[in-house]
Amino acid sequence: MVTLTAYITEHEDRFLEDLKGWLRIPSISTLPEHASDIRHAAEYAAQQLRDIGLERVEVIQTQGHPLVYGEWLHAAGKPTVLIYGHYDVQPVDPVELWESPPFEPTVRNGSIYCRGAADDKGQTMLVFKALEALMAVDGRLPVNVRVLIEGEEEAGGESIEAYVRNNPQRLQCDAAFICDTHMPAEDLPALITGLRGIIYTEVEARGARRDLHSGTYGGVAPNPLHALAIIISRLKDADGHIHIPGLYDRLRPPTPEEKAFWQQDPLHIARSLREEMGVAQLSGEEEYPPLERIWARPTLEVHGIAGGFTGEGAKTVIPAVATAKISMRLPPDLKSSEVFTLFERAVKQAAPPDVTVTVRNVHGGEGMLASPESAPVRAAAAALKETYGREPVFIREGGSIPIAALFSEILHAPVVLMGFGLPDDNLHAPNEKYSLAQYFKGIRTVASFLQKMG
Amino acid sequence: MVTLTAYITEHEDRFLEDLKGWLRIPSISTLPEHASDIRHAAEYAAQQLRDIGLERVEVIQTQGHPLVYGEWLHAAGKPTVLIYGHYDVQPVDPVELWESPPFEPTVRNGSIYCRGAADDKGQTMLVFKALEALMAVDGRLPVNVRVLIEGEEEAGGESIEAYVRNNPQRLQCDAAFICDTHMPAEDLPALITGLRGIIYTEVEARGARRDLHSGTYGGVAPNPLHALAIIISRLKDADGHIHIPGLYDRLRPPTPEEKAFWQQDPLHIARSLREEMGVAQLSGEEEYPPLERIWARPTLEVHGIAGGFTGEGAKTVIPAVATAKISMRLPPDLKSSEVFTLFERAVKQAAPPDVTVTVRNVHGGEGMLASPESAPVRAAAAALKETYGREPVFIREGGSIPIAALFSEILHAPVVLMGFGLPDDNLHAPNEKYSLAQYFKGIRTVASFLQKMG
Repeated sequence: MVTLTAYITEHEDRFLEDLKGWLRIPSISTLPEHASDIRHAAEYAAQQLRDIGLERVEVIQTQGHPLVYGEWLHAAGKPTVLIYGHYDVQPVDPVELWESPPFEPTVRNGSIYCRGAADDKGQTMLVFKALEALMAVDGRLPVNVRVLIEGEEEAGGESIEAYVRNNPQRLQCDAAFICDTHMPAEDLPALITGLRGIIYTEVEARGARRDLHSGTYGGVAPNPLHALAIIISRLKDADGHIHIPGLYDRLRPPTPEEKAFWQQDPLHIARSLREEMGVAQLSGEEEYPPLERIWARPTLEVHGIAGGFTGEGAKTVIPAVATAKISMRLPPDLKSSEVFTLFERAVKQAAPPDVTVTVRNVHGGEGMLASPESAPVRAAAAALKETYGREPVFIREGGSIPIAALFSEILHAPVVLMGFGLPDDNLHAPNEKYSLAQYFKGIRTVASFLQKMG
Repeated sequence: MVTLTAYITEHEDRFLEDLKGWLRIPSISTLPEHASDIRHAAEYAAQQLRDIGLERVEVIQTQGHPLVYGEWLHAAGKPTVLIYGHYDVQPVDPVELWESPPFEPTVRNGSIYCRGAADDKGQTMLVFKALEALMAVDGRLPVNVRVLIEGEEEAGGESIEAYVRNNPQRLQCDAAFICDTHMPAEDLPALITGLRGIIYTEVEARGARRDLHSGTYGGVAPNPLHALAIIISRLKDADGHIHIPGLYDRLRPPTPEEKAFWQQDPLHIARSLREEMGVAQLSGEEEYPPLERIWARPTLEVHGIAGGFTGEGAKTVIPAVATAKISMRLPPDLKSSEVFTLFERAVKQAAPPDVTVTVRNVHGGEGMLASPESAPVRAAAAALKETYGREPVFIREGGSIPIAALFSEILHAPVVLMGFGLPDDNLHAPNEKYSLAQYFKGIRTVASFLQKMG
């Protein structure tokens, strides 16, 4: 009987060819002219699942792009793992900056260059290959598995959200596993144990009935742009403190381990942030370590202010209406709907009385916390240690992965965020690539993770 | 010998035909395809001046559109009056809203409808006709006269500014007379005794080297939009007070007469302002009467804020750079260059330390005060009383008329702002018109004004 490791080594070439075949399909989800490519990429994934030996494999039609589902549920008494990935990719513009054609997978310097190589076909395919290896070597899987692959991750993800909300029984599981993140460095395995949620809002201020000339009306006219400036400055001060009553009350303090990690910053993330931004000093709440600020503190940012005149030259208009796009990032303890209520109330309290303010909830999403003590996270950590020879670090991300929060909310399952991308993979940019070493190490790690879950 | 009044009455038809001929020339100064019309309109004005009997009549070439000059300097021992007007007009879009063709002068309901009827061909032509009547009846003018007509009033006015700065001797005068304003109502003659100046600026805030994602950087990134909000809110508070150290120090208190007029507001201007804006209450410094706020107080307005994302949807960008257009209106005692220095200093003091701020002086212009006690203003007031049967009101305007400030600055002459437009003349809009009664009353008033100056 061949060992798992030997099987993986022996089939590396084909594992790479199967990935290349998928990468050649330009499954750009936001461009309607790629609809048949989307379909083709979904069928390709379904065929992979059938080849592995999964059952009830199905390309599920949706309002948008299809989902791909497959399952293997014969590990009686063992946990069920829901595996997530996505087959859609970003557009390729500016195409002239690609060193090789964006949909012709090309190996250079130990990496495979292609749109989707890292995000997320490479990472999804390595999970398929781990399943294949387990099935081929043992004739069975060590856990029950459900696989759910979507085609709208780069386009809003509405179809999978509707499907998960409508089919929680079919997706019932003990852990969800998402392979769509990266490690801080190739010798530094990592697990992501926290994500921030978000509210995205539009704050509209209305003054006079029509646009006014500042010569004739300046001094007696309401100015919605000025009102927005006052509101924004009252919501967050120059030191990064947010003045929304009740916001900080519900914030859970981090664990001592997390706090120590953030303070010590052994990965020198603060220095990287400074260098990437080209600033001498980081902004924000100086009484909190930078890692806590980006991973575990609520933040408020204004993204744009519309209204009046921003063209060349000098127009002295006082606009009738102005709008600000303002979002907040929310640590997992802060629920987006509750924070929106607090936000709306604070905006109205901060508004000068001469404008009428309305606050629109554009969208919201929840954060996520995965305890390092949960069984799935411990299994993933042990697998990473086995493959990489060192303990993984537990990090958070400041952004949002809506599907993680959705699995957590609807399926009540701990979520394992373990990915093998690297910081220089050029996601969403020209010359996207994926390290071949990471691809093959990823297959071994995922196979080991599933074994340890069994 | 015919009297002046009889001469004017007798020639009303021709006075109107001469205006119509000028109005038919579509002398739009901002559209290059009207260059020959501009030239034609200038020649038409020059011919009018020759017909009156003015001397040294000249179409003066400039970097832009030509000026028209003429003089009559044989009133030995009498003052010299510099007369200003402009022959260029605004574009006519949206042309479909005109009830008669924009360049076909049409008389309806006692008004002549045409682009330029009020602004400023009608008002300039009535001054020409006053000169003609005086010359025809008396064989001479009661004062020395210089006439200077420009063709760029609607296009920045750069050529006349350069000409005035370079030729102060040729334009030497004891009073300047500008006929390009309106009266509050047709039975309410008015003289404008004050204009506000302006500084128009762009404030740029720079944070990180490049645009950032708020998920990854929110909490440690400088946000130039937020910095601008803080700066703007610190420059002016919600009660309309400007916090620029030194700004209010140089402000001269109004005369008791002005203060009483502003407080009593006999023209009910505050009510009109509320109705035009559709607001229940006026904004700004409530401890000052509304008329003082718009005519005699410095104000600060933000006109637009650029940077980040203002399109449809939700982009979580923290921009590297953001820019605000901010202007200030300045009562005559505040010099634009001095206020700009104070403004720039205050902006830099108000800026959070994590952004780099630069302040650009886009343009500046001075305000103007004309004492109601000066001889030219008293002569104009007496002429208005004679024609309209009541004392004129002395009002200010909150906006700027750069040529008035320029005459005041370069020629050191009191400026008479006496015009015969009405509030419903549709300046810069479709269906511009000029009241025929005001046209003929204007001729009589201007002739009387020049006689009283003599």
